Amino acid sequence: MGKNFSVEECLNRMASGWFYLSCLVLGSLGSMCILFTAYWMQFWCGGFAWDGSTHTFNWHPVLTVAGMVVFYGAGSLVYRLPQSWLGPKLPWKLLHAALHLMAFSLTVVGLVAVFKFHNHNHIANLYSLHSWLGITAVFLFACQWFLGFAIFLLPWASLWLRSLLKPIHVFFGASILSLSIASVISGINEKLFFTLKNATKPYSSLPSQAVFANCTGMLVVTFGLLVLYILLASSWKRPEPGILTDRQPLLHDGE
Amino acid sequence: MGKNFSVEECLNRMASGWFYLSCLVLGSLGSMCILFTAYWMQFWCGGFAWDGSTHTFNWHPVLTVAGMVVFYGAGSLVYRLPQSWLGPKLPWKLLHAALHLMAFSLTVVGLVAVFKFHNHNHIANLYSLHSWLGITAVFLFACQWFLGFAIFLLPWASLWLRSLLKPIHVFFGASILSLSIASVISGINEKLFFTLKNATKPYSSLPSQAVFANCTGMLVVTFGLLVLYILLASSWKRPEPGILTDRQPLLHDGE
Repeated sequence: MGKNFSVEECLNRMASGWFYLSCLVLGSLGSMCILFTAYWMQFWCGGFAWDGSTHTFNWHPVLTVAGMVVFYGAGSLVYRLPQSWLGPKLPWKLLHAALHLMAFSLTVVGLVAVFKFHNHNHIANLYSLHSWLGITAVFLFACQWFLGFAIFLLPWASLWLRSLLKPIHVFFGASILSLSIASVISGINEKLFFTLKNATKPYSSLPSQAVFANCTGMLVVTFGLLVLYILLASSWKRPEPGILTDRQPLLHDGE
Repeated sequence: MGKNFSVEECLNRMASGWFYLSCLVLGSLGSMCILFTAYWMQFWCGGFAWDGSTHTFNWHPVLTVAGMVVFYGAGSLVYRLPQSWLGPKLPWKLLHAALHLMAFSLTVVGLVAVFKFHNHNHIANLYSLHSWLGITAVFLFACQWFLGFAIFLLPWASLWLRSLLKPIHVFFGASILSLSIASVISGINEKLFFTLKNATKPYSSLPSQAVFANCTGMLVVTFGLLVLYILLASSWKRPEPGILTDRQPLLHDGE
C-alpha cells in the first residue's frame, strides 16, 4: 500500500471508520431494543403464547419493534455499506428487498397477534391514535416495498424514472421509520397506562416496570435517530455514477 | 422579460412554483393543527383557564402543538424561501432565530401549564414516556437554539467551524421535530385514554371526540412530514457560495 494518501482519501477512510463504529453502536442498540421489549413482556407481562390471551398480545410489541424499527432500519442502510459502493448493484438490491420483506413479515405476525387477542376478548380493533398511525405506517411500508420492487428491482423501468423516484423512495423510507417510532412510543405509553392502571403502584409512581419500559422507548428513539443520521449523512452515500468515475482513481491511489 | 429560458431556469421556476404550493398547503395544515387542538380542548374538555384546574392543563396541547410543531416547522424552513437565496444572509438568520425563540416561548408556557395543573392536583410530574420524550425534545431544542445562536449568529466562529456544524445543526433540527411529533402522538393518545376512560362511550367505541382528536394527530403527522420533505428536498436549498456564483447569470438571463 502506498503511504501518500490524498486529503480526500484520508477523509474517505475517516468517514468509513466512523461508519463502522456507528454500525457497531447500531447493532448493539438494535439488539437491545428487541431484547428489552422481550424482557419486559416476559418478566412483567407474563410471557408468550398463541391462545388469544394477553400472552398472545405480548408478541405484538416484540415483533413490531423487531420488524418496523430494527430490521427495517438495518435494511434501509444496505447502500451505506462501503462494500456496496463499487461493483454490481443487483446483489445489494436483493439484500435490501429481502431484509425489508423479513421486516414486513415480522410486522404482519405482530399485527395478527394483536387482532387475535382483540377478537378473542371482544375488544374493538383500530380505535386508538396509536393503531391509526401504526396501521398507516404498515400500509405505507407495503406500498413502498411493492413500488420499490416494481421500479428498482424489475428490469422494465428506465434510468430516468428510477432517478426521478429515488429521492422520493428514500424520503418515504425515512418517513415510514419516523411514523414507526411515533407508533412505538405511543404504544409503550398506552400499554403502561393499561398495565399499571389499578395496581397499588400506578404508572405515576414509576415502578421498576415503568422505568424499564420508558427506557426501552428512549432506546428505540435513539436507534431510529441513528439510522436516520446514517441514512441522510451525505458522506456515507453510494456515489452517483458521475462522482464514482471522478473518485475511482483516488480510491485506487492508496491500494 | 426575455422569453428564451434555459432548461435549468425552467427547472428552477418549476421548483419554485412547487415550493410556493407546498407553502400554501403547509400554512393551511399548520393553522388547522392549532385550530383543531384548540377546538378539541374548548368543546370537549371544558375550555381554558389559569387556575390550576384541568382547564389550565388544556393550554398544554394547544401551546406545545403551536410551539414545538407549527412555529418550529415554519422557523425551520426560512432558508428554503427563494427570497433568502440571494443577498445578505443575516436578516434571514435573525428571522430563523426569532421564529424559533417564539416557538420555544410558546412551548415553555405550555410546559408551565401542565406543571401548574399537576402540582395543584398533587399529580406526579414527568413519569410517562410521553413526558420523558417531550422534555428531551424541549431540552435538545434549547441546546440547539443556544448553540445555533453562539455559532451561526454571533460573529466569532470561523467559516470552517460553521460548515462543519451546519449539517449537524440541520440533522438535529429535523430530529427534534420528529421527537416532537412522537410526543404529540403519544400525548393525544394518552389524553384520550384519560378523558374517555369511565364514560358510557369509551375510547374504543370511537365517539366523536376520539375521531376528531385522532384526526388532529394524523394532521400533525402530515404537517411534520411535509416540513421534513421541504427541509430535506435538495432542489429547494439555498445554493452554497460556489453554486450561487455559477447560477447567478442563469437567474438573471430571464429577468
